Amino acid sequence: MSLLVIGTVAFDAIETPFGKTDKIIGGAATYISLSASNFVNKTNIVSVVGGDFPQTGLDMLEENNVDLEGLEIRENEKTFFWSGKYHNDMNTRDTLDTQLNVLETFNPVVPDNYQDCEFLMLGNLAPTVQKQVINSLHNRPKLIVMDTMNFWMDIAMDELKSTISMVDVLSINDEEARQLSGEYSLRKAAQKILAMGPQYLIIKKGEHGALLFDKNEVFFAPALPLEEVFDPTGAGDTFAGGFIGYLAETKDISFDNMKRAVIYGSAMASFCVEKFGTERLENLTDGELEKRVHEFISLVQFDISLVNS
Amino acid sequence: MSLLVIGTVAFDAIETPFGKTDKIIGGAATYISLSASNFVNKTNIVSVVGGDFPQTGLDMLEENNVDLEGLEIRENEKTFFWSGKYHNDMNTRDTLDTQLNVLETFNPVVPDNYQDCEFLMLGNLAPTVQKQVINSLHNRPKLIVMDTMNFWMDIAMDELKSTISMVDVLSINDEEARQLSGEYSLRKAAQKILAMGPQYLIIKKGEHGALLFDKNEVFFAPALPLEEVFDPTGAGDTFAGGFIGYLAETKDISFDNMKRAVIYGSAMASFCVEKFGTERLENLTDGELEKRVHEFISLVQFDISLVNS
Repeated sequence: MSLLVIGTVAFDAIETPFGKTDKIIGGAATYISLSASNFVNKTNIVSVVGGDFPQTGLDMLEENNVDLEGLEIRENEKTFFWSGKYHNDMNTRDTLDTQLNVLETFNPVVPDNYQDCEFLMLGNLAPTVQKQVINSLHNRPKLIVMDTMNFWMDIAMDELKSTISMVDVLSINDEEARQLSGEYSLRKAAQKILAMGPQYLIIKKGEHGALLFDKNEVFFAPALPLEEVFDPTGAGDTFAGGFIGYLAETKDISFDNMKRAVIYGSAMASFCVEKFGTERLENLTDGELEKRVHEFISLVQFDISLVNS
Repeated sequence: MSLLVIGTVAFDAIETPFGKTDKIIGGAATYISLSASNFVNKTNIVSVVGGDFPQTGLDMLEENNVDLEGLEIRENEKTFFWSGKYHNDMNTRDTLDTQLNVLETFNPVVPDNYQDCEFLMLGNLAPTVQKQVINSLHNRPKLIVMDTMNFWMDIAMDELKSTISMVDVLSINDEEARQLSGEYSLRKAAQKILAMGPQYLIIKKGEHGALLFDKNEVFFAPALPLEEVFDPTGAGDTFAGGFIGYLAETKDISFDNMKRAVIYGSAMASFCVEKFGTERLENLTDGELEKRVHEFISLVQFDISLVNS
């Protein structure tokens, strides 16, 4: 068993109503793998950074059981950089700056040691790059989960649909589900998207929780109502990392186990937003996670006995 | 045991992306009592209409077990009228016209036959009118549930807070909770509002479900993801009617039973939005309701066994 994550390892500069950061470590693969590392012993990543990426960042990832053999370091180039500012409601944000840098020519190479991959998480990247990783694996993984974003729907819809057709689980947000399907109703959108190939669809609704669909069933996991959302950056990736990490740990890809994985993903995301960047994820304990999952259980559990049930 | 509902009985003219109605029967007390009538044998209402209110409307209410002794009919005046147009996302709407008519001088009188009231639902009305009804009851009801809206926060905050301090359960939407408390976080907002007097607070989030708070606990009920939302008018009142109707039927006002009541309220609201106006509520069967509640159970139920649980 092994878990392979592809995606960005990046610098972010974030501004929220609560404060502002200088360049801090971010990126989809970073959040996914830090989150997944709460469930599996080792997370393999395939990504790229520049020579400006600090050794302390590499150390932090390794201390969190992230294997860096697949992380290409280009000494003479610069790491991908994103800067954004959140509005007061924390649900919307403006991108202030995007510098692709090393990402412009990223050509993912999967090391031989990663070929045993059973669980593959495709973090948000160009769909052609995501597809290249699928094709470079000698054996198809047991489960491929894919994240993407509206940007690729705007500029590369055909390539995106081609990659989507190759995965088992697609994870997108509500607006993206509407854009991808052309349907406003999420229930209708889900059926159209599932017809594109994936067996399962996760629709993330931020502070309003997440929906898991297959062709016949739907499951809803709320987001935990928090006292304070400090920084939503990485919450979706952290959710995805918890989701696939839990599945990789339990080796069970039934719909019932995916429900649990959605709850664990939601619990991980609820930690992510409590501090800037990856801070809260770096030192999370099993006890804290278990306590948080308990809160989810008590948040939604009720007991109704129906006559015909 | 009896259930008393106060609120408007009205004409609405509604425009949604799916169509447009002429004047149809609406109003908070209408939706609340039609919804509650699925749980109790009889719902008493105190309200007022004009001579233009049709006999067919009165008949429809009576056929749905709504007692009309407390419905004042002013032959020479006109019924309250509201007209609104929903935006494409169905979450926001513009009020096109409001004609208070009989409501301008509404002076609610509770008939002697209604004095046995154990469950009182205060539909949205001027807070002074809501308070007048509480004060005109010889015995305090076992449970008082109050609905209100941002309009009263804008123009009558002091009177509103005075009435809120007298009730057991306050039911408002997320934006109203933020306005009333001055807190963006719903968790913080809830604590501030509970400090104003009510033991319980329901925060309605429309298509994103509803939260039930007391000082120590929080419960979340999702809205059912529907294929189509046809007309959201009355959904909040229908929710409230299902909530208090279920409590009145079961005579149990524990937090655990309130959770069930929130689920039943959400199930009722999910029917309301499927057709224009009250159409879907008028002929709902017990079997349909039970089936819908089953969908809520399967939507949120998951089974996680924690080591320390």
